[in-house]
Amino acid sequence: MVEISLERTKKWVENHREKWLSEFTTFLSFPSISSEPQFQQSVLDCAEWLAQFLEKLDFHVEMWPTEGHPIIFASHLKAGPKKPTLLIYHHYDVQPADPLEAWESPPFHPRILNGQVYARGAQDNKGQCFYTLQALKMLMEMGDLPINIKLCIEGEEEVGSAGLAKILPKKKKELQADYLAIVDLALRQADAPSLTLGIRGIVTLEVQAKGSATDLHSGSHGGIAYNPIHALVNLLSMMRDNQGKIAIPGFYKDVKTLSKEEREPISFEFDEKAYLKDTGAKPTGGETEFSILERAWIRPSLEINGICGGYIGKGFKTVIPAEAHAKISCRLVPDQDPQKIGALVAEFLKKNAPQGIEIDVVVHPGQGKAVRLSPQAAVVYAFSRAFEEVFDKQCQFIFEGASIPIVPELALACGGETILLGLGLTTDQIHAPNEHFGIDRLEKGMLIMARAIENLSKFNF
Amino acid sequence: MVEISLERTKKWVENHREKWLSEFTTFLSFPSISSEPQFQQSVLDCAEWLAQFLEKLDFHVEMWPTEGHPIIFASHLKAGPKKPTLLIYHHYDVQPADPLEAWESPPFHPRILNGQVYARGAQDNKGQCFYTLQALKMLMEMGDLPINIKLCIEGEEEVGSAGLAKILPKKKKELQADYLAIVDLALRQADAPSLTLGIRGIVTLEVQAKGSATDLHSGSHGGIAYNPIHALVNLLSMMRDNQGKIAIPGFYKDVKTLSKEEREPISFEFDEKAYLKDTGAKPTGGETEFSILERAWIRPSLEINGICGGYIGKGFKTVIPAEAHAKISCRLVPDQDPQKIGALVAEFLKKNAPQGIEIDVVVHPGQGKAVRLSPQAAVVYAFSRAFEEVFDKQCQFIFEGASIPIVPELALACGGETILLGLGLTTDQIHAPNEHFGIDRLEKGMLIMARAIENLSKFNF
Repeated sequence: MVEISLERTKKWVENHREKWLSEFTTFLSFPSISSEPQFQQSVLDCAEWLAQFLEKLDFHVEMWPTEGHPIIFASHLKAGPKKPTLLIYHHYDVQPADPLEAWESPPFHPRILNGQVYARGAQDNKGQCFYTLQALKMLMEMGDLPINIKLCIEGEEEVGSAGLAKILPKKKKELQADYLAIVDLALRQADAPSLTLGIRGIVTLEVQAKGSATDLHSGSHGGIAYNPIHALVNLLSMMRDNQGKIAIPGFYKDVKTLSKEEREPISFEFDEKAYLKDTGAKPTGGETEFSILERAWIRPSLEINGICGGYIGKGFKTVIPAEAHAKISCRLVPDQDPQKIGALVAEFLKKNAPQGIEIDVVVHPGQGKAVRLSPQAAVVYAFSRAFEEVFDKQCQFIFEGASIPIVPELALACGGETILLGLGLTTDQIHAPNEHFGIDRLEKGMLIMARAIENLSKFNF
Repeated sequence: MVEISLERTKKWVENHREKWLSEFTTFLSFPSISSEPQFQQSVLDCAEWLAQFLEKLDFHVEMWPTEGHPIIFASHLKAGPKKPTLLIYHHYDVQPADPLEAWESPPFHPRILNGQVYARGAQDNKGQCFYTLQALKMLMEMGDLPINIKLCIEGEEEVGSAGLAKILPKKKKELQADYLAIVDLALRQADAPSLTLGIRGIVTLEVQAKGSATDLHSGSHGGIAYNPIHALVNLLSMMRDNQGKIAIPGFYKDVKTLSKEEREPISFEFDEKAYLKDTGAKPTGGETEFSILERAWIRPSLEINGICGGYIGKGFKTVIPAEAHAKISCRLVPDQDPQKIGALVAEFLKKNAPQGIEIDVVVHPGQGKAVRLSPQAAVVYAFSRAFEEVFDKQCQFIFEGASIPIVPELALACGGETILLGLGLTTDQIHAPNEHFGIDRLEKGMLIMARAIENLSKFNF
């Protein structure tokens, strides 16, 4: 088989732009929000659209049912046993779109503005999934796939991948591959090619503080009844000290100090001005004794993701509410066990509850451990070369603070070398209103995936 | 004029029960929620119903416009200048009804169950207003009013009485009276007649903590950006120490120690078991160094009445929100100035804001000072006698932790001796779902108001 050059792929991307932009718009139009039951049919419609797309590319497509949303498993194994097999992971589900009023255009009616596609999922992960799909389509149209390709595209990443986690032990044979590419990551900078050597783990919890049987008048009862909002803010406040350290006993127990080699990527300079410009935020969160990138990449964190209690509408209501709620997530580093950390947080909250307030904590299932990769792996070479060819710059190695909880288990089921990559940027506003992805990065993604597949085809067994 | 005996009034109440219950139902059916703009017409409809009711009783009725909801001023001055004039204060507006799902019957479709009328406003203040109206109707039907009566029924009590506060200086002549009865209070126990010698003042605030320009992903940004929910819970937590003391510098500066005589009412024993049974709450809130009744009656308090930020829907969203909000109220004791306390709280929150978080505080207008009355006043005698006649028990003197912000200014405009009374109970769930009022107390209220008017008629000038 003749190697397909970078030049040929560039031309294909250029010549088919109208067609693939139209297909991308369709993909983004499905409100495939996995966490909200009312979108169940939309999630399914999205899965079926994907399945049809892959069937047209001559893939063998299976729809694996779960208790939630189905997993699309597709394989194209005509390269034969002497050629490597690459398993590529994506997800087609997206985060909720609220607050809807903060979107400048409807989240499921994609809009193109200044070279960016605006929609929920435009980047995370439909945009990144889409350039993989187009790279495969391109290679097929130019001849055939030079290696064996398997795709695992799940529909529950944003809710913890419970279905995939459950099915993994039964699907080891199907998922077996030489390499596993997790394509759900970000670049450090738009003009700097990079591969990700580590992601953080995650555990999420919900806490409820309960006082009286019903809401009470804050005049008659203020000073008598213990206000559950006060209890909750005290407890949440106690979880972090003045230096941003998590004050929950045992939280840092399994956190290892990194070697000099492992810390090398973290020596990048963090551009505070650019961060302020991009996000409107000063980088003042987290542990004061660590650098900004250390805090986001190699240190665990704890964030309150939501809080509510009492009257929050217009005007005022002088109430002591019966209960108050919060949602909490912890990002974890290697050796921290999600269930163990979840239990520590729950215990801390319950133990410190004031008299008269009942604290209930639910630790969510489907939690994921952190992942760290070796820069010496062959698959890292194949992909870093692809990045360098497309960007014409040296590829950097970075970490990512976010989590893809399913990765450790998926890597185990696959049995191959894992690589984490993607073309996201911190400015893409994933999980937030006005999420977007650059058309330039869609194009680069197609080229990189095609080049990496060509590079891997040079490894014979 | 012949004095109308307690026996005659009891018979009238008994014989007209069907009629007045039907009228009460109509009064309660208006969703006169003053804080929510969409109920503006309902508030007006309620005011007009009241005006018609009073016109039928031969009152001269004026509807005083405000920037918000109108004030009903009604007078019946045929007793002449030798007889005293009593100004009675009520309000026809009610609190919002949410959470609606917690109501066992719709809040504006009154339901009678086990001798209780369930509806928003059933007690606060429509129920109490209604027994005044019926007492006047009863006395008119039996002959005429033995003293001059003025009524001031406002529509903005639940939102701070801004309209009434503004109009007071212009309406001093109309409001002038020998006595002012504020009928919006509670009994200490259902079977214990009591008059209230003091209410707390109030100041309310809203605070906003702002971090990034938009919501951020808590994985990529956790440990970098300062989460405004964390900032808010820290700041709110800092406002109170472990002993329930408000930790805001200067908060207690103007709080005086009460004399032995003033503290006498507070020596009542607080029934913790009954409180737990009634409210589901243990009395563990407030300053630990004071008794429960001291905490509610003669000590200031600070309560968070509402808090929100981030994702609070079903499922989970791993977000660092751009902002978080809270609503706060302080209950004040004599000599504490609401605006001064509001400014202290605002200053405290702003001063302690962490780097990277912007704190905005709005101190609401229409705040009220605390009120303390003398048990030696003539009007106290007239009303305490009425309570004793109807209950056939000695009248107690108590305090109330809640606030009626307009009272100090209204008392000034009226120029007469003030009295605070009412037949509420802590179990009435005012400001909460399933608010209710006992039919027995409606009846007692009619009798007490009629008896008090008869008692006052014995004071000649």
